[in-house]
Amino acid sequence: MQVKAAVAYSVVQPLSIETVELEGPQAGEVLVEIKASGVCHTDAYTLSGADPEGLFPAILGHEGAGVVVEVGADVKSVKPGDHVIPLYTPECRECEYCLSFKTNLCQAIRATQGRGLMPNGTSRFSIGGKMIHHYMGTSTFANYTVLPEIAVAKIREDAPFDKVCYIGCGVTTGIGAVIYTAKVEAGANVVIFGLGGIGLNIIQAAKMVGANMIVGVDINPKKRALAEKLGMTHFVNPHEIEGDLVPYLIDLTKGGADYSFECIGNVNVMRQALECCHKGWGVSVIIGVADAGQEIRTRPFQLVTGRVWKGSAFGSARGRTDVPKIVDLYMTGKINIDDLITHVMPIEQINHAFDLMHTGESIRSVVTF
Amino acid sequence: MQVKAAVAYSVVQPLSIETVELEGPQAGEVLVEIKASGVCHTDAYTLSGADPEGLFPAILGHEGAGVVVEVGADVKSVKPGDHVIPLYTPECRECEYCLSFKTNLCQAIRATQGRGLMPNGTSRFSIGGKMIHHYMGTSTFANYTVLPEIAVAKIREDAPFDKVCYIGCGVTTGIGAVIYTAKVEAGANVVIFGLGGIGLNIIQAAKMVGANMIVGVDINPKKRALAEKLGMTHFVNPHEIEGDLVPYLIDLTKGGADYSFECIGNVNVMRQALECCHKGWGVSVIIGVADAGQEIRTRPFQLVTGRVWKGSAFGSARGRTDVPKIVDLYMTGKINIDDLITHVMPIEQINHAFDLMHTGESIRSVVTF
Repeated sequence: MQVKAAVAYSVVQPLSIETVELEGPQAGEVLVEIKASGVCHTDAYTLSGADPEGLFPAILGHEGAGVVVEVGADVKSVKPGDHVIPLYTPECRECEYCLSFKTNLCQAIRATQGRGLMPNGTSRFSIGGKMIHHYMGTSTFANYTVLPEIAVAKIREDAPFDKVCYIGCGVTTGIGAVIYTAKVEAGANVVIFGLGGIGLNIIQAAKMVGANMIVGVDINPKKRALAEKLGMTHFVNPHEIEGDLVPYLIDLTKGGADYSFECIGNVNVMRQALECCHKGWGVSVIIGVADAGQEIRTRPFQLVTGRVWKGSAFGSARGRTDVPKIVDLYMTGKINIDDLITHVMPIEQINHAFDLMHTGESIRSVVTF
Repeated sequence: MQVKAAVAYSVVQPLSIETVELEGPQAGEVLVEIKASGVCHTDAYTLSGADPEGLFPAILGHEGAGVVVEVGADVKSVKPGDHVIPLYTPECRECEYCLSFKTNLCQAIRATQGRGLMPNGTSRFSIGGKMIHHYMGTSTFANYTVLPEIAVAKIREDAPFDKVCYIGCGVTTGIGAVIYTAKVEAGANVVIFGLGGIGLNIIQAAKMVGANMIVGVDINPKKRALAEKLGMTHFVNPHEIEGDLVPYLIDLTKGGADYSFECIGNVNVMRQALECCHKGWGVSVIIGVADAGQEIRTRPFQLVTGRVWKGSAFGSARGRTDVPKIVDLYMTGKINIDDLITHVMPIEQINHAFDLMHTGESIRSVVTF
């Protein structure tokens, strides 16, 4: 079939709206009509050329929502008409990782996904007979896409596509870091470094679970208002305090953060996030993606005296199991997505969405079909 | 009263057996007759001058066992005749740390303990009117010592002093790292770096809890036999393998360690210990004490893909609560201390015990009174 997609032909170059040939779903695959897709920093990261694993030409996009149109042989968990969110972190429920009960990092289709291909080693996308790569196993910048069955989360049908698409990446990454990775408890003091989309979702999750102090750290004072609306109790601009940031935060929280989150990707900030944690039990969670080759460092004494250093990918959420629950959190008013989606535009304007991201004017832009 | 003690007058110099004046216990303190004391690397570390917090003159020793002889006012939890193990990590059960349920690092008397003094800011030890410092709040290289009530663990009376004294530090540090810090579960694969006393105790604790592979890593092949007797299933000498250690260990454990332990104090080994952990869930525990100023480092990707970096002090054991349980583990045959205490000698020969440690001839030497 012929579909409309934003094709990335090479790094830096704007995406091109094209008619692309899409093969139907094979065994274990589903065809999904994408209704809306968020435009995320990870798409921009790949498009910038900084991603060492970036492949071109490709159809980017990994934060979508849509409806199952057709299923291939052996597909049992979804049927045509089901509303779904594509999962760049699938959940096969059969691999060692899924069965460990300790991680969400399903490995079932990792190798082919990393090569921009479906699990059988081929692509479903082409133009004029030339193969176009899938991206993150999702390729949501197309009005139709093919996905492995294990890479779709079935969600409730009353959820608006142009809102819950954001749950496909950013919302889950932030909310999940709080409720699944760190398991923040009521009364805890939390420090968040970086008040972009992830940081804002961490703030609202911390508020949801009853955190006490919710301290946001950002050098941009414009981030303050929305962060406070979502639950931030204290704003710290490192450029505006006297002395070093770490002792300032330890003093502010009367001993240190019970939980801290790094949402920037800066290894120096990651160290600050660890070291502002409370002696004895503070847990620091790395979410931001650092540049290739960068290293985190600290004195081992920081860990021996009880701090824990860990990371979070896709919020430690199991895609098929937990994503529908996060949709419920939104639909029951426990989390706010509406205020975070600052721009909605047709797919034809997708390059404008990247511009808004680069200038810092958007929290999240969503493209629709 | 006059007591017999091994006094450390300054760094490097041998300990001197002296008659020392000991004041009786004040309110909240207990007088304990020390029956036996292990000689630990931490004593040697302070004596070497490498410990930036070392104070002299002092009575070293922090791994003792003995009998309560007298109690000061307001002491309620122990009485004369009780058998006890002194605790360099006390447990007040009242401070923010004790009440957190998240750490064993009681802070009730930290400041004075660090200054070589009892909680009221004075020392009980002197010679000819000149003050001698306490050490780690315990000073077990004396046949009598005064301790805060919160720094003694009451233990069963049938436990032999010259064995269970080792529970005052080394045994608990190793066993506790497995059962309290890492909470190793049956079937897990464990890698231990450094097969000294701590490493050997980790091995036997891993065996006790039903670990699957128990891999010991040491460059000294002489460590192998005892480690195997205690439960090590695989020995890896980094000097004898082909290629790099980390991929070797990941291959050996079919994916990486579920839990790894660094018992050396080498920041490069700490990195190996983290990076040999299983993607998705491997937990690496730092126990060894690194030289001042040394830093650990790794790529944040190691954490974002699910590994956890933490530390352990005194095996995360709460002194008064957990030390008696570890004595029970020994008395019921679940852990082996006898094979780890390689030398027993009177206090007068304590300098020989340090010599045996430095030449690597002892696992643990115990001095008796």
